[in-house]
Formats: sequence, C-alpha cells, structure tokens
Amino acid sequence: MRALRLLEWKSDPVLTEVPEPHAGRGEVVVRVGGAGVCHSDLHLAHDFEPGQLPWGPPFTLGHENAGWVHEVGEGVTGLAVGQPVAVYGPWGCGACPRCLAGIETYCENPAAAPVPGGGGGLGLDGGMAELLLVPAARHVLPLPEGLDPVTAAPLTDAGLTPYHAVRRSWPRLTPDATAMVIGIGGLGHMAVQILRATTAARIVAVDIRAESLTLARQLGADLALAPDEDAASAVREFTKGRGVDVVIDCVGNDSTLALGAAVGRSLGDLTIVGLGGGTLPVSFFSLPYEMSVQSVYWGSRPELIEVLELGARGLLHTQLTRFSLDEAPTAYRKLAQGELEGRAVVTPSLG
Amino acid sequence: MRALRLLEWKSDPVLTEVPEPHAGRGEVVVRVGGAGVCHSDLHLAHDFEPGQLPWGPPFTLGHENAGWVHEVGEGVTGLAVGQPVAVYGPWGCGACPRCLAGIETYCENPAAAPVPGGGGGLGLDGGMAELLLVPAARHVLPLPEGLDPVTAAPLTDAGLTPYHAVRRSWPRLTPDATAMVIGIGGLGHMAVQILRATTAARIVAVDIRAESLTLARQLGADLALAPDEDAASAVREFTKGRGVDVVIDCVGNDSTLALGAAVGRSLGDLTIVGLGGGTLPVSFFSLPYEMSVQSVYWGSRPELIEVLELGARGLLHTQLTRFSLDEAPTAYRKLAQGELEGRAVVTPSLG
Amino acid sequence: MRALRLLEWKSDPVLTEVPEPHAGRGEVVVRVGGAGVCHSDLHLAHDFEPGQLPWGPPFTLGHENAGWVHEVGEGVTGLAVGQPVAVYGPWGCGACPRCLAGIETYCENPAAAPVPGGGGGLGLDGGMAELLLVPAARHVLPLPEGLDPVTAAPLTDAGLTPYHAVRRSWPRLTPDATAMVIGIGGLGHMAVQILRATTAARIVAVDIRAESLTLARQLGADLALAPDEDAASAVREFTKGRGVDVVIDCVGNDSTLALGAAVGRSLGDLTIVGLGGGTLPVSFFSLPYEMSVQSVYWGSRPELIEVLELGARGLLHTQLTRFSLDEAPTAYRKLAQGELEGRAVVTPSLG
Amino acid sequence: MRALRLLEWKSDPVLTEVPEPHAGRGEVVVRVGGAGVCHSDLHLAHDFEPGQLPWGPPFTLGHENAGWVHEVGEGVTGLAVGQPVAVYGPWGCGACPRCLAGIETYCENPAAAPVPGGGGGLGLDGGMAELLLVPAARHVLPLPEGLDPVTAAPLTDAGLTPYHAVRRSWPRLTPDATAMVIGIGGLGHMAVQILRATTAARIVAVDIRAESLTLARQLGADLALAPDEDAASAVREFTKGRGVDVVIDCVGNDSTLALGAAVGRSLGDLTIVGLGGGTLPVSFFSLPYEMSVQSVYWGSRPELIEVLELGARGLLHTQLTRFSLDEAPTAYRKLAQGELEGRAVVTPSLG
Repeated sequence: MRALRLLEWKSDPVLTEVPEPHAGRGEVVVRVGGAGVCHSDLHLAHDFEPGQLPWGPPFTLGHENAGWVHEVGEGVTGLAVGQPVAVYGPWGCGACPRCLAGIETYCENPAAAPVPGGGGGLGLDGGMAELLLVPAARHVLPLPEGLDPVTAAPLTDAGLTPYHAVRRSWPRLTPDATAMVIGIGGLGHMAVQILRATTAARIVAVDIRAESLTLARQLGADLALAPDEDAASAVREFTKGRGVDVVIDCVGNDSTLALGAAVGRSLGDLTIVGLGGGTLPVSFFSLPYEMSVQSVYWGSRPELIEVLELGARGLLHTQLTRFSLDEAPTAYRKLAQGELEGRAVVTPSLG
Repeated sequence: MRALRLLEWKSDPVLTEVPEPHAGRGEVVVRVGGAGVCHSDLHLAHDFEPGQLPWGPPFTLGHENAGWVHEVGEGVTGLAVGQPVAVYGPWGCGACPRCLAGIETYCENPAAAPVPGGGGGLGLDGGMAELLLVPAARHVLPLPEGLDPVTAAPLTDAGLTPYHAVRRSWPRLTPDATAMVIGIGGLGHMAVQILRATTAARIVAVDIRAESLTLARQLGADLALAPDEDAASAVREFTKGRGVDVVIDCVGNDSTLALGAAVGRSLGDLTIVGLGGGTLPVSFFSLPYEMSVQSVYWGSRPELIEVLELGARGLLHTQLTRFSLDEAPTAYRKLAQGELEGRAVVTPSLG
Repeated sequence: MRALRLLEWKSDPVLTEVPEPHAGRGEVVVRVGGAGVCHSDLHLAHDFEPGQLPWGPPFTLGHENAGWVHEVGEGVTGLAVGQPVAVYGPWGCGACPRCLAGIETYCENPAAAPVPGGGGGLGLDGGMAELLLVPAARHVLPLPEGLDPVTAAPLTDAGLTPYHAVRRSWPRLTPDATAMVIGIGGLGHMAVQILRATTAARIVAVDIRAESLTLARQLGADLALAPDEDAASAVREFTKGRGVDVVIDCVGNDSTLALGAAVGRSLGDLTIVGLGGGTLPVSFFSLPYEMSVQSVYWGSRPELIEVLELGARGLLHTQLTRFSLDEAPTAYRKLAQGELEGRAVVTPSLG
Repeated sequence: MRALRLLEWKSDPVLTEVPEPHAGRGEVVVRVGGAGVCHSDLHLAHDFEPGQLPWGPPFTLGHENAGWVHEVGEGVTGLAVGQPVAVYGPWGCGACPRCLAGIETYCENPAAAPVPGGGGGLGLDGGMAELLLVPAARHVLPLPEGLDPVTAAPLTDAGLTPYHAVRRSWPRLTPDATAMVIGIGGLGHMAVQILRATTAARIVAVDIRAESLTLARQLGADLALAPDEDAASAVREFTKGRGVDVVIDCVGNDSTLALGAAVGRSLGDLTIVGLGGGTLPVSFFSLPYEMSVQSVYWGSRPELIEVLELGARGLLHTQLTRFSLDEAPTAYRKLAQGELEGRAVVTPSLG
C-alpha cells in the first residue's frame, strides 16, 4: 500500500510503497478514514537533528486518526471488523501508574513503550496510509453513533488537547467564573466550544486576527478582543475587577503568558497549551495568590471518550478540508504556507 | 405596614398591620420586590401542631425573597441603599463549621441561630410585607446586572435547591454521562436547565404529566418519558445499558426512588430532593456498587451567587405569575388548588 | 501440580492434580508465595446452586495472591522472571470506562471479561496451587521493597477493600473529623490502620468482642466500644454532639447500619463493606442531610499499588498464620469453626 | 495598658501606654495569652517606606494570637467570657466570594476590610498588649480541649500557613507519593509534622543546617539532605526515578525553586511558601507536564480549626520560648540576630 512517510530528518514527507500490516496477538489494524494534518508534523519534519529524539525516520506520518476496524489479532475482544473507531494516539508502556490511570501521555516508563515518548505517526507508522497497525487494543475506541471517522480524526488531538486543559479546571469554572482562551486557531476554537458545552463560565477570547474573533463570538465567546495594550484592563473591567479564573493559552509566547498572568485571579489556573516557546517568570508576588501555572500535553483515554461524545452530539464542530492521500503533500504545503482554512484531514481509504 | 402573617398553627395566613422594622448594628432592611409563594408554606400553615417545631406563629410568611436595600445598620459595609439584592434564606448560627463554609442549611448549632432551623418566613418575619429585616448582612447578596428582584426571588429557593443537588454531582456529569430528573415541576424544570447550562451530560426527564414532558424537552431534555412500567428498560436502552449516573428525584415517593435505583449506574448518585415521603431500602446488593443515596436541603450562600449569575445571563428561566400583596391569599389558594401556572411571586413594594 | 479445587457446588474443596499452566501472549504465570484464605470462599463452596452464577466449578480456589513471576508470555514487558509480585484480583473486560480507569471491580462489560464478574479463584483457577495463570499482564504488580509475597497476599483483598472504602472518603477525613469502623475483624482491623496512616481523623471502633476492642485501641482507635444500647449516645458525646463523618461498616447487618445512621453527621458517608445482609431504610429525614449511603466492592488497581506501599513501609500489618498447601483444607475448616487467629495464608510454593 | 507598638516606618517597636479597647456590637476583646514573634514583623518594621502599604504606623504588633475572651459585644453569640480562643488573623471584607468561603487571605474587596490587606498587628492593633480588639466575632475560634493559648498562638500563622500548603495537595499525597519540604525552620518543621500526621506520603526534608536535618528526621522525614549539587540526583534515586509529587518550598529563593523543579513529577505541585524573593522561569518544557507552580499565603478559617485540632491532639508541636511583654523587644532583637531557638511567644497577660 502507499503511505506518506518521513524518510529522513529535515526533509519533506514523500509518498512511497510499504507492506500492509497484519494484526498479531492483542493488536488491531485500522482502515484509516481520516488522518489529521497537524502543525507539529512540519516541526517534526524540519527542525530535528538525528539523535535528538529517541526515535526517528523512516516512519509514516499521521498521529490523529480514525477509521474502521480492519483486522483484530488473537485475544482482542469487543471490537468487530468494520466497526468505526478512533485511535488514542499516545502509546505508553501500559503498566506504570500514569498508564494504568489512562494518562499515557505522561508514561513514566517510556523505555517500555512501543516507542519512547511517541506513537503512531511519531516514530512508528501513523495514519497517512490505508492501513494503520495499532499495537494494543486499548488504544482503539469505538465511535459513538453520529460520528464518522473523517470528522472524528481531528478530535483525537486538536479536540482532546484543549479538552484536557479545560476539564482539569472544571471545579473553578462555576457560572460566576470567567475563562479566557488565547489564540483562536485549531485548538483554541475547540476550547471555546468545550467551555460553552461543559460549563456556564463566561468566555473571553483573545486573538490578533479579526476573523478569529468573529469566529469566537459565533462559537459562544462573551468577549473577543485583540491582545493589545488595553486588553488587560478591558478584561479586568469585563470581570468587574475580579479577574480571570482560568486562562487557556494556546499560543504560549512571552506576551500571551504575561497577559494571562496580568488578568488572573487568586486560586485560578494559567495553563500553557501552545508551543510558542515563551517563558513566564514566576515569583511569590508575580501572579495572584494560588494561581497555578502549568503546561499540559494531549489528554487521557477516558477524556477522548468524552470528546467523541461531544462531537457525536453536535457540541464540538471542526471546520474541515478533505484531502486524498495523493493530495497529502499538498495539504502539508498549504499548512506551511498558511493557506489552509480550518483543519486538513487526509482520507486514505476514501480516495 | 401590612404583612401576610401566619397567626396560629393550622390556619390560613392573613393580612394584618405590623410595625416597620429598623436595622440595628450589622442588620439590613430590604424593601421586598418579590417573595415567592412556596408549597412548603401550605405545609407549614396546616400540618403542624404547637410545640412540634422549635418556633411558631405569629410571623410573616415568605422565605424566598429579593428586593432593594432600604436601610443598613451600623457596621455594615459594601451595601448601598437602593441596591438590588437577593436574600440568602437559611439563617444559621454563623460560627459552626458548616456556617463558616457558607452552608447554613446544615448549621450544627441551631440554638445559636436567630431561630433554630428556620429563618425569615420560617419562624421569623419573612418577605410577604413591604420591608424585611435581615439579621446579618452576610445574607444579603447584590444582584448581578440583568436580574430584577421579582425574577430573582424564586431563584433563592426553587433555583438554589436543585442547583445544589446538581452541582455536588458535577464530577460525575461528564459528556458521556446521563442525568435523570424525576418530577418536572417547580424545582425539576429548574434542574433540567441547570444541567443543560453547566454540563454536557445527556438529560432524561420523567413526569406523569404530558405537558411537563413537553416543557422538559423544550428546556433541553434528550429523553422525556412517563414513569410507567416500561420506563426503566427505556432508560437502560437510551443509555445503551450503562445506566444513569445521577438521579435527581424531585418527587421522592416510594416508586420514584425505586425507579432511580433501578436505572442507576455504579459510582453514581441518587439524590432525594422532593418531600414525597418515600423510603428506599438500601442493602449491599440493592443498588449498583457505590451508587450513593442522600437527601439534600436548600443550598449554600456561594451557590446562590452562582444561581443568580445563571439567572442574570438568561440560562435559568422561571415561569412567573405576579401577585400584589393584597392578592397574596389568592395566590396561596390557587397554589393549594393546583391552579397556578409556574411560580407565583408576591410583589409587596411594587403594588 | 496439586491444587485445592472446588469440584462442584455445595462441596468442600479438595486437593487434586492439575496440569501446569503456561503463559500465552500477554499472559503471566506466577509462582504462588501466598494465597489468602477468605470467608467468601466458604460462602462460595456451600451456598450456591448450579446456574446461580455465570460461572462454576471446577476451579482452583484462592483470590488473594502474591508470588514471583514464573513465566512471561510474548509481548509482556516490564516483568522479569523471579520478580516478587502481587496479583490484582478483579479481572474485567479491560476496555469499558470502568476498566480503563483501573476499577475492574465495576466492569461494565462482564461478558467480555475472562469470566463474567469473577477472576482467579472465582470461576477461573486461583492461587491455591504452585502456579497461577494471570490472563493479562496489567494484573501483575511488582512488590515494593520490604514486602514479601506471603505478607502481601492478604493485602490484595482484605487490605484493598477497606482501603478503597476509606480512600474515597478522604476529603471528609480532616483532623477535626471522626471516622467509625464497625467490626474489627479481618477487614476492620485493616481499616483502623489505614485511617491512622493516611488521615488525622479521630477513630471510633465498634465490636462485640472485648479482644477486638483491645486490638483496635492498640492499632490507634481513640474510642473503642461495644454496639450496645448506649453506643450511639457515647459516640455523640465523644464527638461533642457533632456526629461521625465517615462510617465504615464491615459487618453490614440491620443493627450496625442503624447505628451508623444514628451517629452520622451531615455531609458524611456511610459505607457498607460487610456482607451481613442488612437493610437500611433511607428516606428524606432518616439520615442527616447529605449523608450518603453506598456499598463498595474490593478496590482499584492504582489503589492496590498504594496499599502495597503501606504494607512495605510497616504502616499496615496483618496477623498471619501460615499453612502449607497440604494443610489448606485444615485452614478452611478452622476458618469455618472460628478457630483462626488473624488471616490464614496458604503458601503453595514454600511448602 | 502597655503595648509593643510600631510608631513609625523604619524604626524599632517600643513599649508605650495605650487605652484599653472595648467591644462594640459584633466585636470581641481577647485577653492575650500568647502573641507569636514573627520574622515578617522585622521586615515590616524596617523595610517599608511611608505610602508603600495602604496602612501604616502607629499600631500594636502581633498577628498570631490566642488568649481568653475578655468582653463580647452586643449580638455576639457562642462565646463566653473566660473561654480560651485563637484569633484568625486575616481580616477581610467578609462579603466577597473569597471571604464567604472563609479564605479571607484572598479577600477581593480589601477596601471594605477593616484595613486593606492587613489585620491585627498588620495596620490595626495586634496582640502585643494585654487586650486585643477583634472587629468581628467570626475571627474568634474556641480552642479545643488540650490546647492552651500560649501553645496555640504560633499555630495561627506558623502552623496555618504550611497546613494550607499541604492540605491543598492532599489528593496527590497518596501512600506511593513523595513530598519534599525545603527549609526546615519555623514553617518547614511544621510542614513535616503536618505531612506525617495527615498523609502516608514519603517525606524528603532539605536544609543547609545539619541540626535542622536531624530535627526533620526526628519529626518523621524519610530522607533529609542538604541542597548541594548532588541533591537532585539523590532525591531522584530515593523516588526510584519517579520524582517528587509535591514540593513545599519554605525558602523560595532561585536555587530552591530550581531544585523543586528539577526533582518534580508530572501532575505534581510546586508550592512557594517562603518569601526568599526567588524567581522560577516557567515554560512549556521547563517542568514535568502538569506540575503546577503557585504561591500560597496564610490559610483559611476552617483550616485553622483543623490545625488547632492537630495541636490539641499532640500531632503538631512547636518548640517555644516564652517572653513577657517587657521582654518583647528582647525577643525581636534575638530573632533579628538569629539567637532564638524555635518560636518566641510573648505572653502579655501571663507576665
């Protein structure tokens, strides 16, 4: 079968021929319906040196995947051939305390994982091919009714990541609280919808692009504004001086982190989701008391089940552009050049 | 001023003349905009013997109140005359662990409360008069913008009670969970709205009245059905066999409790809100593992702040019928005879 | 090899010869160091009819097991032959939301489990033999330093069950709270130690046996008393009228449940652990407000890791009597006749 | 009466004569048994400029106080003259959401507090005099049996502050977790005891002084070590590579914060308690995933009740040196010169 593969570091991925995978004991082969085109793949293809990561090319790209069960290995129960499924992407060791709790993103024994700190599309073969080998049945989650694989694919990463960030802050997101999402792109526009669906908190959206602010308002933001010099005082005023309880920073550069800290409220959360490379200097008095700062990465398997439910029930929409596997290189090129609207999804087995 | 007062046990309340109250140190007098007409007042007026409660008539009725600050006593800060406010109804001792946490409903030193286990309209003079004396400023909560006292009044009890019941179960109300509200009356139709606004759980509504089921669907219920013999299996099927995570029983008779237990899920909550007088026999195997059963009463002061926010932002509507103070006896008569649509609110200072 | 097996319902288990098991892909064979002798085995052997459970004889007894890794199947990582391990006993489907969260006791798809609602020693072959086949590596947990398999075995059930019951109530078990353990037997004397080690709550122990009360005091109970007619008022006085925040009822008959309800506190927990067959009638006013009632069964895999740590660090002791496999029938006979002191552990591979 | 007062910024406190206070409505006068001598008073006396804080001299020092009720104002219930009490030190507005939840340290309307951001001994007259006026009865907490005012005084700050820091991290402090306390001084040696009493986590203590490490071991630390260049790897090894779940940094300089970050574990907490003035640069990859960083200040009123219980039951000891009011200037001098062993407590009404 054909696959879009990264053949060496610092190169563009290419379409080549690879053997079809088969499911050994405990394994599952998924026929890929959708494989999301993610910014981090560009980073992966171009910014790493050999030896920098514990794994490397060649491998097939595609780490946000959904499709249909194609073959189940011996000992796998509860999955039927043809059944639509999503693939939980972070593949940990399966036995450390984090993995046993379903949080394979934070696996504490990566040496025992299929690939250390990676997964399908990240060191192992991913979903940019007709068939995807998933090394453990626990990573294969049935899709709820009402959700097809193409739509589901981006939910496994672009949906799951902001969901995890919002969900961990639920106890603070009471109806008198305010949440602020910085960066209304692929992840941020999901975050606004997730906040709207799962809490009654007020939502502030921040972005430099006017069209993103318009989108945020349509999705339920109560206030949408640019991160200019008046932003902090406008947000303070909007919250009647109280400040923002939860900041979800999907950009993560120096100035967005500083804005989050400037508008925060005591006992709040400032959660770094975006890989903008910024730094926030934290000292005793630099943030409101007990406002926590932390970065989060992807999400847990039980959370993915919840995200898929949101999608199936129409509470979490993704703006999608479909590409065939042949067009996958084009999709990445457009992504690199900022020419994509919404999320690109490659549909290997749909043509 | 005139007031609707209960003059003795087992009698109808009557309009009589009483002196106007004044605010001593730490106290506040509220000009009453709205005072809710509550079923429990009928119970109070007719079903108690002298000596049965630690307090008794004469007193002015009305325990769900909102209005405007009329007079503030010495030492009261943060409240201005004319400011619209709601009154937190459960008045505890203010010093026990429960009161210090804002849960005055569960005051552990009722002997030190203004009236043991009561409050304004429950042993002390309530809101069915132009002016209401509130014995401690902490019970007076400013209304958020967008909420007027007439609308706010029923939120302080008919809104707060189901809010408390739902809120304590939030951690279980994930997007893949199901909540079931039994009894879509005054409290139950609030519960449906609160679930819809603050969670993404699926909602099942149960009522014997077809029009209540219609209302529940309009307010966001995903399934609405009568509690007939097929109800449990219909709910099981709706949840694909998993069962209901959280049951909010606003009726509370033997059969509704039994229904809740029959459809429950392990690790769920079955919360008794309604005073239907039923009993559920609980043994090791009678409910799914770790499904908790408990009764709840009213709510906490911080929760009332949150309920008022829901109201102000249009997420919690009450169907209201207004009555002047003169018409208050009529309102109670209609309530007793089942002739009221929605909640009746007496508006003493609005005519 | 020889094994203590239940050959038919309503019979005594017998020692017979069975083939040695081997580890298939994903499986592990454990050489059994200790297999706990549990009251529920007597119940299992004598009180069930054919067809009453979804599984049945013949099978080897022993559901609380620890030992050393003997053989690992293909694909199993992180376990080395000879390594001391405990076996997590509840074997669920591994794929439902409960199993994915590590709570296999509450598996929601028992039809897909190795045996529906059972496990090793409960329908499948258990630990009363030299070798035990564990069908999934996730059930095999390395022992922390300082803990040997004989000591560890009873922790997997008699330790894990009360640990789960206590742990879920931690948020209520502040230093000003009181916990009450009813029944200071195999599980209850563990519960006292777990409360002492993991919280600063006051502990009340209740038992009809004077020597159990003495033991409870030695293990850290602040008050130990018999469940006579003065018990409730003595406990009320001990708590200065406040009542008990958390009741762990390891007996579970009508009168112990009634005692728990009588001394409870608002916002507390009354948790049924014991299979005494009692019933508690719950109505709106029958318990303090928001005191929850629920039954719990065994515990989760992450919790077992925590229990093993308590054991390894000397914070959780079990009074043990060792029996060889030959003596296993004697151990059960003594258990049935009430002649055992502490927990009996059969040591199949130690002679 | 005489009082130790700060008469102007940048001066030593002096003993002068002031009028005796009397209790107005809702107020309480406490006869001071113990008033703790705190490092922050030295900072207050010497490091501020006029206008820098919203309040200033003259006022009586002493912000950690306990004693006996001397006079109760009108309307105060539940307190009897002569009753031993502790004083909750942070005096907020009493009406904002934070104050209503008992967390007056984080009062959101300081302009409506008795003094903005301060309290007795911090802008208002404190406990370094025979009598202390407390402006609201809610700040006066009865001492549990077994605790005298001299012993109780330092618990209200030096005990409450680390208690709050530890308590908020309880959910992470399971028996398989590790906590690390940096700085085993006045607050840190309390933190070790609080961890030991309320959790079963392993405890690592870090200090540059050998005698502090000895003390930490006596109080229950499992590992005690100096913060030298090998510290991080020693801690990693002690935790078998897993890292520290909760860091309580009672120093708070650049190097202690860096040490905390270096040994942290995913999903952990790094809590800044000490005013060492350090800064931790936080970026996406600078700490383990989802390890939160935050500063905490003092504690809540319900938490103080819990701390007093720990003290009353012998689970929280303070090494005390008593000073008469005449000797109070000496106590501060010794504190400034590092000549004090343990906590100094001035005993104004005990001579």
